[in-house]
Amino acid sequence: MTAPKRITGVLSPVVTPFKSDLSPDRARYVRHCKWLLANGCSGLAVFGTNSEANSLSVEERMVLLETLVQEGVPVEKLMPGTGCCSLTDSVRLTAHAVALGCSGVLMLPPFYYKGVSDEGLYRNFAEVIERVGDARLQLYLYHIPPVSQVPITLALIERLLKQFPGTVAGVKDSSGDWSNTKAMLDAFAKSGFDVFAGSEVFLLDNMRGGGKGCITATGNINPGAIDKVFQNWRGPNADALQKDITAARNVMQKYPMMAALKAVIAHYARDPEWATLRPPLVELTSAQSKSLMAELEARGFDMPGLAAAGATAIA
Amino acid sequence: MTAPKRITGVLSPVVTPFKSDLSPDRARYVRHCKWLLANGCSGLAVFGTNSEANSLSVEERMVLLETLVQEGVPVEKLMPGTGCCSLTDSVRLTAHAVALGCSGVLMLPPFYYKGVSDEGLYRNFAEVIERVGDARLQLYLYHIPPVSQVPITLALIERLLKQFPGTVAGVKDSSGDWSNTKAMLDAFAKSGFDVFAGSEVFLLDNMRGGGKGCITATGNINPGAIDKVFQNWRGPNADALQKDITAARNVMQKYPMMAALKAVIAHYARDPEWATLRPPLVELTSAQSKSLMAELEARGFDMPGLAAAGATAIA
Repeated sequence: MTAPKRITGVLSPVVTPFKSDLSPDRARYVRHCKWLLANGCSGLAVFGTNSEANSLSVEERMVLLETLVQEGVPVEKLMPGTGCCSLTDSVRLTAHAVALGCSGVLMLPPFYYKGVSDEGLYRNFAEVIERVGDARLQLYLYHIPPVSQVPITLALIERLLKQFPGTVAGVKDSSGDWSNTKAMLDAFAKSGFDVFAGSEVFLLDNMRGGGKGCITATGNINPGAIDKVFQNWRGPNADALQKDITAARNVMQKYPMMAALKAVIAHYARDPEWATLRPPLVELTSAQSKSLMAELEARGFDMPGLAAAGATAIA
Repeated sequence: MTAPKRITGVLSPVVTPFKSDLSPDRARYVRHCKWLLANGCSGLAVFGTNSEANSLSVEERMVLLETLVQEGVPVEKLMPGTGCCSLTDSVRLTAHAVALGCSGVLMLPPFYYKGVSDEGLYRNFAEVIERVGDARLQLYLYHIPPVSQVPITLALIERLLKQFPGTVAGVKDSSGDWSNTKAMLDAFAKSGFDVFAGSEVFLLDNMRGGGKGCITATGNINPGAIDKVFQNWRGPNADALQKDITAARNVMQKYPMMAALKAVIAHYARDPEWATLRPPLVELTSAQSKSLMAELEARGFDMPGLAAAGATAIA
């Protein structure tokens, strides 16, 4: 068996809806995933930072992924997060995703210990790849030092790429540092290593530098406009389109991101339960929520068709 | 049912031995736990930072804990780590530990997201306590900001202690900052909140300030000498005994701690496989190991009876 076609474009790290008892809400989840794919996302990076994935158990993630597949979300659009602190958890989730046929996996380094060596991180990723032992595996490294506090260095990428060509497929760079993304592009883009910006703020620069798209929090609410930049990045109005999505992102970044994303979805879906988060995250205050919605409305922001989508009933 | 008697004294965050295939080695684990209890430890804080607990799956931790109980390690000596990033994992591990009869649990805050609010952390601990819903639960908070990057503030302790008196039993302070430990003692020791220093370096100060002992990495190799300070902290030679264990600690702190602990056990048990760690941690280089053993031997360091203990056969 060979590796699936690689995803390019705009991926959303899909926010995970919870019921009032804090259990994952499968019906709202499927509905949101389908809305995203119908409205500009070319892929779904489920179980990312914005998905509260590390607030879920391994079993909860597996059930959610299986639910998506059962409910007809195309597996070739899925790039689940599978990197855990525990090697055995990372292997289990990665093997599960590959067995289901997911296009790739987005893998955090083990993030409990800080100041670990590249040698230790290399061994972690190498163990996962070897234990999964499946030629279909496409592994994207997840560099997000502001949260994980454990960076993926250029030297580590180089070593992994040399040892596991084809399998080590790319990176999501959520450093927030364009010079780092550029260094990754310059060093590896020509070796078939797909660089995704971790925010749409860098989407146009990333495309011009040889990147493949972005995996971005606000892909959850603004996928259409972000996809427009991806579709038209060679066009004459690319800079104007980029300016527009950067401005929208800047509004969101004034608020705690995950709470803000869920508040926006709750508002535009007319579905207040969407605002629920698992501890340790907390929802926006009502003052924050009001001010955010006012700012978005002033920009003419909308999530077309979201309120009308209706819940998917799941047995 | 009422809460078990609380542990005081020297607790070891027991290092977890791995076989060459990186699976947990139950026989070596039981043997080490029994050696610790016979050589100065009054309790075992299994599944701590030094145990590579976050490098284990939830199931692996549960099997190891059940193994200890089956092999006759007294449950009233056990204080397993049960705090995970995922609320559902923390609940599962905590309920399991309480059901087995463990004296307490040592709980990390969810540590993936950084900069989270006290409100979010309060909700996390409150949810765990309420979902476990067992009067036998004694919860010790685990403050280790250098690793978790998520601190447990005095305000959070105060709120939890007020809401869950009796259940919120104490703290392990691994901040490395004596002024923080002192502030915890001054604020809460008189309310029946048991403060454990996170290093034996602060053991005597902690006892003099109203604390209950220490939970310390080097309890894995030097429990007898550390226990002597605990047993004699009111005695005339307490400062001299403290000086001795601080000096031994200072030797260990020159090396990566978890690798160093395992190297020392491997050396004194004459059992090289003990040196194995799971990624992302790596073993000492042979030069580091040689230099560490030379320093310890120069101090007359020993782990009496360790080599003779022999492996426990486990079905």
